[in-house]
Amino acid sequence: MKIAVDAMGGDFAPLEIVLGSIEAIRENPHMEVVLVGDEQQIFTILKENNEQKNPRITVHHASEVIGMDEHPAQALRKKKDASVVVATALVKDKQCDAVIAPGSTGAAVAAALFGLGRIKGIDRPTIATPIPTVNGVTVMLDSGANANSKPKHLVQGALMGSEYAKLLLGKANPTVGLLSIGEEASKGNEVVLATYPFLKKLKTISFYGNVEGRDIPKGTVDVVVCDGFVGNVVLKFAEGLVTAVTQLVKDGIMAGGIFAKLGALLVKPAIKKIGKRLDHTENGGAPLLGVNGVFIICHGSSKAKEIKTAINIAGDLVDRKIIEHIQKTIEVEGAFKYEYDE
Amino acid sequence: MKIAVDAMGGDFAPLEIVLGSIEAIRENPHMEVVLVGDEQQIFTILKENNEQKNPRITVHHASEVIGMDEHPAQALRKKKDASVVVATALVKDKQCDAVIAPGSTGAAVAAALFGLGRIKGIDRPTIATPIPTVNGVTVMLDSGANANSKPKHLVQGALMGSEYAKLLLGKANPTVGLLSIGEEASKGNEVVLATYPFLKKLKTISFYGNVEGRDIPKGTVDVVVCDGFVGNVVLKFAEGLVTAVTQLVKDGIMAGGIFAKLGALLVKPAIKKIGKRLDHTENGGAPLLGVNGVFIICHGSSKAKEIKTAINIAGDLVDRKIIEHIQKTIEVEGAFKYEYDE
Repeated sequence: MKIAVDAMGGDFAPLEIVLGSIEAIRENPHMEVVLVGDEQQIFTILKENNEQKNPRITVHHASEVIGMDEHPAQALRKKKDASVVVATALVKDKQCDAVIAPGSTGAAVAAALFGLGRIKGIDRPTIATPIPTVNGVTVMLDSGANANSKPKHLVQGALMGSEYAKLLLGKANPTVGLLSIGEEASKGNEVVLATYPFLKKLKTISFYGNVEGRDIPKGTVDVVVCDGFVGNVVLKFAEGLVTAVTQLVKDGIMAGGIFAKLGALLVKPAIKKIGKRLDHTENGGAPLLGVNGVFIICHGSSKAKEIKTAINIAGDLVDRKIIEHIQKTIEVEGAFKYEYDE
Repeated sequence: MKIAVDAMGGDFAPLEIVLGSIEAIRENPHMEVVLVGDEQQIFTILKENNEQKNPRITVHHASEVIGMDEHPAQALRKKKDASVVVATALVKDKQCDAVIAPGSTGAAVAAALFGLGRIKGIDRPTIATPIPTVNGVTVMLDSGANANSKPKHLVQGALMGSEYAKLLLGKANPTVGLLSIGEEASKGNEVVLATYPFLKKLKTISFYGNVEGRDIPKGTVDVVVCDGFVGNVVLKFAEGLVTAVTQLVKDGIMAGGIFAKLGALLVKPAIKKIGKRLDHTENGGAPLLGVNGVFIICHGSSKAKEIKTAINIAGDLVDRKIIEHIQKTIEVEGAFKYEYDE
């Protein structure tokens, strides 16, 4: 198992990316990583950590980096030697089994799409993000790859999300919900209303029906399917809400005097466990499903722990043959043969 | 000032609705309410509270109620004497100044639209929900009236939201953000991309540019404009997330032993204050902007406190002439003359 890691992507690259890769290697005796990016910088970090001679760590030089604020398609055209492009090419050329891409999500999606191509029957790849819930984890997709999803994209998302949830959650028949503004089939926007009957016809998924916003944290279903604009807004809203509430609680405790402060100290261990559950770094990135290869997108603010988890997840998805599973479900459903309203 | 209250709407009607109305009357010596619904039930509650002879409380009989799960348009056609319809007619006929509508949001929007009509230049009314943030309140609209907004609807929403925020927040130039998936004007779905240049041209609002999901709880802008499908998903997601985190914290504390429990007790007063800020009942409903009359939609789970607050807000909006302000801004902008992509 050999994972190509874009060591230059994200706010804390290359240090945290390299450290996370080292951790993953140390934990998994059968794992190899190829660190793609500025040879010298990466080598310095490896040396500082006494890993410069580890045969399971290779450095693959790439002279360019795509920044967080660059226009994805333009950057991709200009920077042929960008680390994320080179890492993707290693999978395309079968030198590696999966890509880890922290940094710009748009650039990652574009690099994956151009570098690996799509699975037959999939029109657009989709980002599947695991979200912690009251009773476990719900996979939400699309969380940002497509801002103008049509019914066929949501149907394909449902098929891919279900396959991913089988592997991630170990459930034989994960339930799939369609995100809407009411439980009834008659509630929703035009795209959701048009998607519902197609999802009902699918043979390989367990379609639950419509779910609402509140069902995501409640964990009503295993997979929530939605348009990428909606998914992205929800994810970022959740991030902001957690930050805001944490800040308010801190302020409240500071203003609450000595007893409140003592109380906070006593409650801390219990709260910390919850924080750990809600911490997105625990989930280590989100796979881009629908491209011809295992490709994990990590948050731009990824640190070592998230990278390590992402590498583990990538290894797992390769081992369990996620691509083959998706190919098979698409074949069984003949999803691309549905007559969609365009 | 006379407010028509649909006393039969929502999960706790008529008891909580009547109690909230009584509280509002007791607090405001210049306020009158007309309780619309089942005469006998309402009268019993008034009697139990010694308010059956209060000259500022009138009961207006309506023999029907639209349930939470009924199809709005169909229910409206069938139930001519539904409490929400009768309450709306009282405003239409100038017997009352505003409507308070707890219960089914869809039925409320339909009743307002058919009963009051639209303000000239407004194509679709929009629900404006005040959301508590780190530093105050942000108005989000549309939070559920239109599931398929076009650019002109978002533009009209921006104009109305800005006028509402001026009154609610007391700011001369509230900032207005367009909800998207990136800060740059080039980020968004088709509708958002098409809306941006129109918002930039407006003379009467202070357009901030795009905002992201995380900017809502952060309070980056005073008004967030979005499609009703997206707004509704976000609101319900927030509700679910707050419930889920509260549950997790409780469970964590219960499992955390005696010290955690003691700590929780000590922290409680500080936390309670925050809970109060985030509590949607403190905000007492959301105005439906764009119809020809003040119309406040309350949550289906509304209790007395929320109804009282909603009545106060309604009185305030009537006093400050929100309808005239919206009419004026529409005239100044000539918003309906824009050439929109349909």
